[in-house]
Amino acid sequence: MVETKRVKELRNYMSNEGIDVSLIFEPDNQYYISGFKAITYSRPIVTVVTMDRLELIAPGLESEHTSKEAKVDEVYIYHEIPEMAHEGISHTHYLEKILGRFETSCTIGVEKTIISASYQEYLVGMGHKVKDVGNKVFTMRYIKDEEELEFLRIAGMLSDVGVAGSLENALVGMNELEFENVGDAKMQSYIKEHLNNSNVGYENWTNSGIDRTVMPHLYSNSRKLEKNDVITHSRQVWLNGYRAENERTFFLGKPTDRQMDIFKMSVDSQQAGIDKIRAGVTAKEVDLASRAVFEKYDIAIYANHRTGHGLGLSEHEEPYLRFDNELILEPGMVFTVEPGIYIPGIGGFRHSDTLIVTETGCELITKYERAAEKLIFDC
Amino acid sequence: MVETKRVKELRNYMSNEGIDVSLIFEPDNQYYISGFKAITYSRPIVTVVTMDRLELIAPGLESEHTSKEAKVDEVYIYHEIPEMAHEGISHTHYLEKILGRFETSCTIGVEKTIISASYQEYLVGMGHKVKDVGNKVFTMRYIKDEEELEFLRIAGMLSDVGVAGSLENALVGMNELEFENVGDAKMQSYIKEHLNNSNVGYENWTNSGIDRTVMPHLYSNSRKLEKNDVITHSRQVWLNGYRAENERTFFLGKPTDRQMDIFKMSVDSQQAGIDKIRAGVTAKEVDLASRAVFEKYDIAIYANHRTGHGLGLSEHEEPYLRFDNELILEPGMVFTVEPGIYIPGIGGFRHSDTLIVTETGCELITKYERAAEKLIFDC
Repeated sequence: MVETKRVKELRNYMSNEGIDVSLIFEPDNQYYISGFKAITYSRPIVTVVTMDRLELIAPGLESEHTSKEAKVDEVYIYHEIPEMAHEGISHTHYLEKILGRFETSCTIGVEKTIISASYQEYLVGMGHKVKDVGNKVFTMRYIKDEEELEFLRIAGMLSDVGVAGSLENALVGMNELEFENVGDAKMQSYIKEHLNNSNVGYENWTNSGIDRTVMPHLYSNSRKLEKNDVITHSRQVWLNGYRAENERTFFLGKPTDRQMDIFKMSVDSQQAGIDKIRAGVTAKEVDLASRAVFEKYDIAIYANHRTGHGLGLSEHEEPYLRFDNELILEPGMVFTVEPGIYIPGIGGFRHSDTLIVTETGCELITKYERAAEKLIFDC
Repeated sequence: MVETKRVKELRNYMSNEGIDVSLIFEPDNQYYISGFKAITYSRPIVTVVTMDRLELIAPGLESEHTSKEAKVDEVYIYHEIPEMAHEGISHTHYLEKILGRFETSCTIGVEKTIISASYQEYLVGMGHKVKDVGNKVFTMRYIKDEEELEFLRIAGMLSDVGVAGSLENALVGMNELEFENVGDAKMQSYIKEHLNNSNVGYENWTNSGIDRTVMPHLYSNSRKLEKNDVITHSRQVWLNGYRAENERTFFLGKPTDRQMDIFKMSVDSQQAGIDKIRAGVTAKEVDLASRAVFEKYDIAIYANHRTGHGLGLSEHEEPYLRFDNELILEPGMVFTVEPGIYIPGIGGFRHSDTLIVTETGCELITKYERAAEKLIFDC
């Protein structure tokens, strides 16, 4: 019987809450519990946790993959081809068999903020009760263990290689995507030398020029970099699913005095957040420490988002460094610290670094240069 | 008042179903209805459709972005900073104001397979009724208009450049990610010359070697390509959100006779599907035409997934080319045709092309070489 530390903790929770069986659908929660990571679009995969079994229901095309990687007691495969239709053409075929092991009705643990309204209706329509287990699993993921931290450190180091590769090779006339591609190639050289046969990956977002940097969340496009552009380049790099985030604002050419002033304030704001972090402080204290720098210069209204988010398996994950979050930070939590300021006509300015909370402070796992003066590149 | 053809069709549906207000959360549905495309992780964005208003509720960091790109009557911004907290710190602040325009309770259209169980409970808890509008919007997206098709054609053409760039520059010793990066760079050259300031993007999946190609859905990793490897390389490339898919299996070196036999069967199977497609045939007929080739050789059991999926804004979208789908194809529908066969010890073989259904057949928008004999590269 599979009972990792994580499964055991979930079972204890289920036992206390009177939950007979939990259905885990959220892909990162699923990987966290079962060790199985799949590309999931239109074919449901579900991890089923009962007191004595850990089971996975997956589509036919994951048959070989699950047999190699899922750390569970049993895998059930449903099909989408006529030759195998008699063994079930939907995951519900197996789900209903599993639920049939219980008395007429049971209490099912579901991720209530994840499963769809229609899915809950389907479960309740069979006479079962539902209770939330999503919050429990999301909360378990807050504090990373040593293995998770080690993956994150390597991802952070690799992201530094990518950021350096893009920034230090930026040229006027390159477009945003091409600029990213150059950094990717530098990471590749590193990966080739040090990380063969590894589950590494990355995504990038780059916004260039005043008009695009004042919109903090944009997909990169094919705008060409221009002389004296302000540019915000973001990378997430992952190893075995664990993501480090690394973002730098920089200039390709000469900033105006006002741009330089605001840029420095944003760097100071980030530093104030980093300096504040340690076990025992609250999430809101970190956010407010970062915001205080902008408030001092009376521009906080332009700093229009929270200071950071939890990081691990998902692009963003709980907890959040936000002005109203009273959560007390603990060692092993992982956050981005990334206050940003976006002033129309001047530009957007944001660095993001990833760090691990420690008893006495934090361990930065992304280390590329942050000083504004060092982030002005010739063009 | 904003009333595009799409919004009008949705309003007609709402009117027939007695729906007062629709809440669209699914990001691609939202872009389809409101023209606003955002990076959405942890901050809800909702498009609200009533009979006389099209409204959007978005977080503070999308303020500038929505003002430039959302084609709606009004945008409401909620906040996560203390300076603006008095104007609402959750999208529900504005949602409840909008719902307050109606009598005590109203009928809300929601995407029932998308919104969470807890979200539906929140709406019902306020005394409202819910009805599904998701299926209506997903179905509206089946048939593409001329503008959508034009974006898809350009994306398809670009994907050919990427596939050619990767395949024709593959070398033993390159890892999967590096192999992809080379194709990305070739696409970049093309984009730079022909598609400045465009919303283009791409993702890749590459599986190399016998053991990895028999798992159809894997993320690329840093395994190095080896002499005589079978490799399946997949690209999705998009313009303004519209995605073309282009996948090729190829050999880097010499296949065994048995590998070559199976490879040719997979190419024939894809051709049989492509030949079958035209307006008036059913989705299942296409799937079964492709499968018949594998059945003839008694290996259909290894062809463990459906023949294709709809394509447009999402990585996969309805409808599916599956043995049990009776849907009749119509001109303007867009599909991938990608039968695959995966035999342990021999390898996995799958091409995927994207095509537009026409009255008399189909228009292929991805055109890279498909013949097995032409997909054997020196190493």
